[in-house]
Amino acid sequence: MTGNFIKNITPQLIKWRRSFHCEPELGFMEYVTTYKLGKELQKLGFNLNVGKQALDDESRLGLPNEADLKIQEEKAELKGVEKAWLDKMRGGFTGLVATWDTGREGDHVAFRFDIDALPINEIADGEHFPSLNHFASNEKNVMHACGHDGHMTIGLGVAAYIAAHQDSLKGRFTLLFQPAEEGGRGAKAMTEKGWLDDVDYFYAGHIGIQSLPVGTVAAAIQGFLASTKLNAYFSGVASHAGMHPELGRNALLAATTAANNLYAIPRNSDGITRINVGKIVAGSGRNIIPEKGYIEVETRGETQKINQYMLDEASRIIHASANMHNVTCRIDQVGVTEEIACDTALIPKIENWCSNSELVNEIIPIAQVSGSEDASFMMNRVQQKGGKATYMLFGTELNYPHHHPAFDFQEEVLPVALETYVNILKGGSPDCKKHG
Amino acid sequence: MTGNFIKNITPQLIKWRRSFHCEPELGFMEYVTTYKLGKELQKLGFNLNVGKQALDDESRLGLPNEADLKIQEEKAELKGVEKAWLDKMRGGFTGLVATWDTGREGDHVAFRFDIDALPINEIADGEHFPSLNHFASNEKNVMHACGHDGHMTIGLGVAAYIAAHQDSLKGRFTLLFQPAEEGGRGAKAMTEKGWLDDVDYFYAGHIGIQSLPVGTVAAAIQGFLASTKLNAYFSGVASHAGMHPELGRNALLAATTAANNLYAIPRNSDGITRINVGKIVAGSGRNIIPEKGYIEVETRGETQKINQYMLDEASRIIHASANMHNVTCRIDQVGVTEEIACDTALIPKIENWCSNSELVNEIIPIAQVSGSEDASFMMNRVQQKGGKATYMLFGTELNYPHHHPAFDFQEEVLPVALETYVNILKGGSPDCKKHG
Amino acid sequence: MTGNFIKNITPQLIKWRRSFHCEPELGFMEYVTTYKLGKELQKLGFNLNVGKQALDDESRLGLPNEADLKIQEEKAELKGVEKAWLDKMRGGFTGLVATWDTGREGDHVAFRFDIDALPINEIADGEHFPSLNHFASNEKNVMHACGHDGHMTIGLGVAAYIAAHQDSLKGRFTLLFQPAEEGGRGAKAMTEKGWLDDVDYFYAGHIGIQSLPVGTVAAAIQGFLASTKLNAYFSGVASHAGMHPELGRNALLAATTAANNLYAIPRNSDGITRINVGKIVAGSGRNIIPEKGYIEVETRGETQKINQYMLDEASRIIHASANMHNVTCRIDQVGVTEEIACDTALIPKIENWCSNSELVNEIIPIAQVSGSEDASFMMNRVQQKGGKATYMLFGTELNYPHHHPAFDFQEEVLPVALETYVNILKGGSPDCKKHG
Amino acid sequence: MTGNFIKNITPQLIKWRRSFHCEPELGFMEYVTTYKLGKELQKLGFNLNVGKQALDDESRLGLPNEADLKIQEEKAELKGVEKAWLDKMRGGFTGLVATWDTGREGDHVAFRFDIDALPINEIADGEHFPSLNHFASNEKNVMHACGHDGHMTIGLGVAAYIAAHQDSLKGRFTLLFQPAEEGGRGAKAMTEKGWLDDVDYFYAGHIGIQSLPVGTVAAAIQGFLASTKLNAYFSGVASHAGMHPELGRNALLAATTAANNLYAIPRNSDGITRINVGKIVAGSGRNIIPEKGYIEVETRGETQKINQYMLDEASRIIHASANMHNVTCRIDQVGVTEEIACDTALIPKIENWCSNSELVNEIIPIAQVSGSEDASFMMNRVQQKGGKATYMLFGTELNYPHHHPAFDFQEEVLPVALETYVNILKGGSPDCKKHG
Repeated sequence: MTGNFIKNITPQLIKWRRSFHCEPELGFMEYVTTYKLGKELQKLGFNLNVGKQALDDESRLGLPNEADLKIQEEKAELKGVEKAWLDKMRGGFTGLVATWDTGREGDHVAFRFDIDALPINEIADGEHFPSLNHFASNEKNVMHACGHDGHMTIGLGVAAYIAAHQDSLKGRFTLLFQPAEEGGRGAKAMTEKGWLDDVDYFYAGHIGIQSLPVGTVAAAIQGFLASTKLNAYFSGVASHAGMHPELGRNALLAATTAANNLYAIPRNSDGITRINVGKIVAGSGRNIIPEKGYIEVETRGETQKINQYMLDEASRIIHASANMHNVTCRIDQVGVTEEIACDTALIPKIENWCSNSELVNEIIPIAQVSGSEDASFMMNRVQQKGGKATYMLFGTELNYPHHHPAFDFQEEVLPVALETYVNILKGGSPDCKKHG
Repeated sequence: MTGNFIKNITPQLIKWRRSFHCEPELGFMEYVTTYKLGKELQKLGFNLNVGKQALDDESRLGLPNEADLKIQEEKAELKGVEKAWLDKMRGGFTGLVATWDTGREGDHVAFRFDIDALPINEIADGEHFPSLNHFASNEKNVMHACGHDGHMTIGLGVAAYIAAHQDSLKGRFTLLFQPAEEGGRGAKAMTEKGWLDDVDYFYAGHIGIQSLPVGTVAAAIQGFLASTKLNAYFSGVASHAGMHPELGRNALLAATTAANNLYAIPRNSDGITRINVGKIVAGSGRNIIPEKGYIEVETRGETQKINQYMLDEASRIIHASANMHNVTCRIDQVGVTEEIACDTALIPKIENWCSNSELVNEIIPIAQVSGSEDASFMMNRVQQKGGKATYMLFGTELNYPHHHPAFDFQEEVLPVALETYVNILKGGSPDCKKHG
Repeated sequence: MTGNFIKNITPQLIKWRRSFHCEPELGFMEYVTTYKLGKELQKLGFNLNVGKQALDDESRLGLPNEADLKIQEEKAELKGVEKAWLDKMRGGFTGLVATWDTGREGDHVAFRFDIDALPINEIADGEHFPSLNHFASNEKNVMHACGHDGHMTIGLGVAAYIAAHQDSLKGRFTLLFQPAEEGGRGAKAMTEKGWLDDVDYFYAGHIGIQSLPVGTVAAAIQGFLASTKLNAYFSGVASHAGMHPELGRNALLAATTAANNLYAIPRNSDGITRINVGKIVAGSGRNIIPEKGYIEVETRGETQKINQYMLDEASRIIHASANMHNVTCRIDQVGVTEEIACDTALIPKIENWCSNSELVNEIIPIAQVSGSEDASFMMNRVQQKGGKATYMLFGTELNYPHHHPAFDFQEEVLPVALETYVNILKGGSPDCKKHG
Repeated sequence: MTGNFIKNITPQLIKWRRSFHCEPELGFMEYVTTYKLGKELQKLGFNLNVGKQALDDESRLGLPNEADLKIQEEKAELKGVEKAWLDKMRGGFTGLVATWDTGREGDHVAFRFDIDALPINEIADGEHFPSLNHFASNEKNVMHACGHDGHMTIGLGVAAYIAAHQDSLKGRFTLLFQPAEEGGRGAKAMTEKGWLDDVDYFYAGHIGIQSLPVGTVAAAIQGFLASTKLNAYFSGVASHAGMHPELGRNALLAATTAANNLYAIPRNSDGITRINVGKIVAGSGRNIIPEKGYIEVETRGETQKINQYMLDEASRIIHASANMHNVTCRIDQVGVTEEIACDTALIPKIENWCSNSELVNEIIPIAQVSGSEDASFMMNRVQQKGGKATYMLFGTELNYPHHHPAFDFQEEVLPVALETYVNILKGGSPDCKKHG
């Protein structure tokens, strides 16, 4: 029966996925994406929470500047987002929380789906599957290069299942369509709004990460890194580069010196570390000693303690670089992710619920991963309040890694992931399973 | 008589200057500026050469990209630039050449005035003269911070003098309102179009440079540096900075490594050198190993040979930086200036012509300067063809150096400079001087 | 019975250890150390192999230069090393292989003890145990800061046990007192000489590494890193730094550029990496553009593949740094260590043999370590030939890490380690155990 | 007459020069050199001031360390320097001041000759003149690569002239054979001892500098740079590079970061600047995070003010580099030179005195130079006290620049320089000229 639902909805899953893929939007600017999700969820009968109902204003990290938000909002208007919707979202209040109360006693189960894209220019190569099938990104320098287009699609599939099987389910369901996962910026705002406070079971997941075959699912992961996102602003003094180089204070050199030295933070024998300077912009014109410099930095550590080591080193290095070139600097912390510890009690349950699955061939109990995830905020909140949480992987072969301009996943993973979640929904509502 | 002309036109000079100052435009995007100049010169009766009539297409260096040109053209249209004018200038064919033929035998005398602004954000300080008098730049990050607003104004003054005294002058006059001086990009295109080929006397000049009192004028300069402008483009491979840092090829680090090492090119005992990395942009997002990097570089040398040394060093360093981080790079040469050797034979003439001047108190024979000037192309062409050329300075006290966000000059320099040129015009047409 | 042997020899162990500690010698220069070991082993009746009998000439890596060897040899002569001994060792043929054949059929069991010290200046602090007890290093800038003084001591203890119990043991024993473990330089030469080719059981071990309590012993380890040791020589052109800086080619800057960029090799998601530039020497005089530069580099990786990644990156960076400053460079590979995979079949045996131990309180099956070990060459050779090998740890609390100027270990670990090996000797000769 | 004296002494000049050349000694370690000079001057009848009679103890800059001094003193003893001489010089009191009082009223005329060599390894090429003629340096890594061997020789020639013509000269003569000119370390100590306080005329000079033909002499120079010599010591924490890289504080990286950034001090539009890191030594062993780092730095500026700019920048950069890598640092100032302003009044005198010279073909009034000279201390002292001073050049063609391993000069310059000084001596004692 699950099989029929999955089989029937699969063409729709692919349509949704491709629609999301070709209209990617960056974090806190997912106006069109949120609107599209909202309209589908509205049709299905979900209760929707949008804008300040979904997100705690103060807890959004790394918000884009007003000008960029405005441009994106105007674009969204041109693309047909209704004014009432747009007004709620203005100023970067994107994403939404869809809830369903069966009215029957039972667990409160929450799922999280992230919806943002990345500032990457999708490859124009004819061999690239989205190009071949005409759904490559329409936006220059914006791309769903991490699979969030798939995540949202799975989310709509879960919603469709709940709506279609509302009579046989019990308890409450919360679907969190979270903005700005990239950079660890959005989850905190949904968490602080309180959506996770009384959740009994929480599930988040990711397509890919490891290059596993379609049909393989990991019930839990370990290895996500704690991380911190920093912006550093350097401020010097401009001068004519030919006439008075000695009167300038070179903010570009401060920024480049910081970049070069940040990568040289010593490896840490206590565990994995990462450092990245993802962006640099400095200087205004060729013949002017650069007055301003800006870098975007990300530290990661296997534990919060190791990440703190990286953060301390990075802060000292950035300040020393400013001092090296006699300029001032300011560091803003614009994103954070925490460690994740999946509840291992969920693993045998998931193995059990999926044991008769048609599409899920193999359950890996715990997969080793790296990278960082701000679902950590949600999971840690659920666990602090006494609930259980896990983070799952859905296998797909990857020809290119995540965040690569040629990234793509096998669309066959979509029904596999949906079936997994449907199995969880059915398994987690045992009394009603016969109607499933 | 000269006195009266100068005195009467001075209020107009100030009006022109302030109008140019508050509407600054960057090189090859001086659409509004050119239009404003053109309308004035048209009124005065000059023969105008605009667009491809003024500039050799192939010789324009460091042209902005099409998208930026387009935005600026749309802006110009909104600001009222007539379509016929705009059509001629589209694609970065800004600036104009205004000519006047007295019909009487005599020398061909050319003057050059540069018209572009700089990518600097004018200071918002209340003490700043343009702010106090409400003519500070209306454009964010664009500013006349080198005095070209004054240069154009002087040019219109010279034009007004020629028109008003057309009956008493002889020979031919060419006024070159040159785009894109900053970065050494525009002069070559006017030179290659042939405007300088039969010029007998050529005059260019600059407000300020040295902080001399108003009333002091240098008849010639020495010390302008030969220079080359380079753009370097680094191209690596993006990767997820947390999951697979080792799969990336970091173009940002290549660019920052280049920046840091370029400044360390050894000093040269043969003469003055300069190096500047005026701009860097690299990377797309915080958690992505940066795929692209870009720097704007400028080398200078006291002679073309020394500049060649700097250029050779810079090229090797940029390529080694790319290699250091296993990325590829391309270097584009987008601007050049040459050495300048003023004709010293002109110095006593200028001293003589200005000896009874009301506003010019002192003539310095040769002033020592640094910086670079693409008027060098024009001067070298004139001299190659047998004409004589000089580059003059018009004194003004400067509270801040050129290219500083608080740069300003004393407006009293405008009539001084105009009187100097008028003296030259009168002096250079001796037979008609009685009508002057 | 073991107990009595251990108890009786313990004061001698401490004497040996302190004697080695105060006369430390660097790798391939352990002339006095080898002589002292040899005289003791001779007294015990071992068959000794010294000089070219112990080491394959061609396989010694990172040999000191002739001048330094010579100075050390003269010093050894002054310290009383007999000429016959010294002559065998001249030119860096230090260390020795001591063998014992019981004449009875049985396994060939080998133990390896490393004997070299480090170029570290032992702390002069009064709290430091060797200072308090007057056996701190007599050599400036040379120190047993890794515990090899203890390792040799244990080796002599094992030898004493074999000699004392020769009638009850069977098979053959080979004790490898290896030079130049630091830097991965000496093991290969003993391995290539064939000493490991017919070994059935091989044991190596280390004091400390982890800060475990005395009495705790690890039967095996995992985590030693594959590593490569490189020396890079940069060669430029000297010039007067004031008069002609531009004529120099700066080898110092090439070396420092390499150092700074080597630390920035991207982390690798496949496993642990390390990079170190342990030494730099460049330039000759303050006012001379440096002509020569030299760096000592070490790469490590969790696997040989990851170390190869580090090595490839390091080589490219070093060459690019040379190119950046227009100098030439040569890279010499002067040391290598391999991964280690202990034979887990030995773990339960060791646990069993030590089960009634008086001093060994706890056996940890597999301890997690980092660092690198050239015993890897010996172990891999033994395993390739069908023997079994393990690498053990002997717990001691450490107030300071290995290679720290204040490093020290608890001398109580010496009898623990000796008892462990004695248990292994007795356990590995089961038929004779009753006589043990 | 002059001609005969010069002609006769020329073979001796060449002998002296070659003797000095093959036994070069570094600054403040010129034990053998001083002894050789002293013995010659003694024979000539000069009054000698050696050791603390010649040098102010406290004012010696950049003294070598005690161990190096001791080694050199032992070497000097082995080479036959008499004990009485050596005892006076011990501890780096090298160089000497030779005086002659004619007993007749007249000017006090002083000449300065510098005597130290450089830490450069003389080229072993067969084409190299000193190699061909078997007087190349016997000392590895020490070389007279700046011509001071010639300067001393000229000094002995001047002494010989004074002795030979004592009856015809009047006034007093002081010959300063100064140690440690390289690095600006020795002149201050002679100056502070008071030797220059009542000097009427002071002459110093240099062979080469510019590649002028033999026979050409510059009566004065301009362009010597003010300079400062710094040593920076970085102190971090050692750690095992494989096991605990994060516990180290890397003094090597601090030193290399400083080196790389020092070269990037902005050019100064007020005048010439120089920066050099002439030496770096850091780290102890390959697998140890480096605990110590050391660099030798030299700043120069066209004026003392510009040099102060360089010094301020350098100091800030060195401290920021330490801070970048979390280590401490100490900066010692170990040498200084000042600007030089030759008394132009001496130029026509020198031109006049040399007008009938046989060997001096041409006098250049003022030659443009770069580099730095601590004779500046002496000259500035003379001028402050009312005397007159100049710094001269003696032309020789140079195939390689000063401080190059293949540097050499034409020995024909020696009699030219001597004749110039003899002319000055004769010219400066006009009344006695007839006896000359």
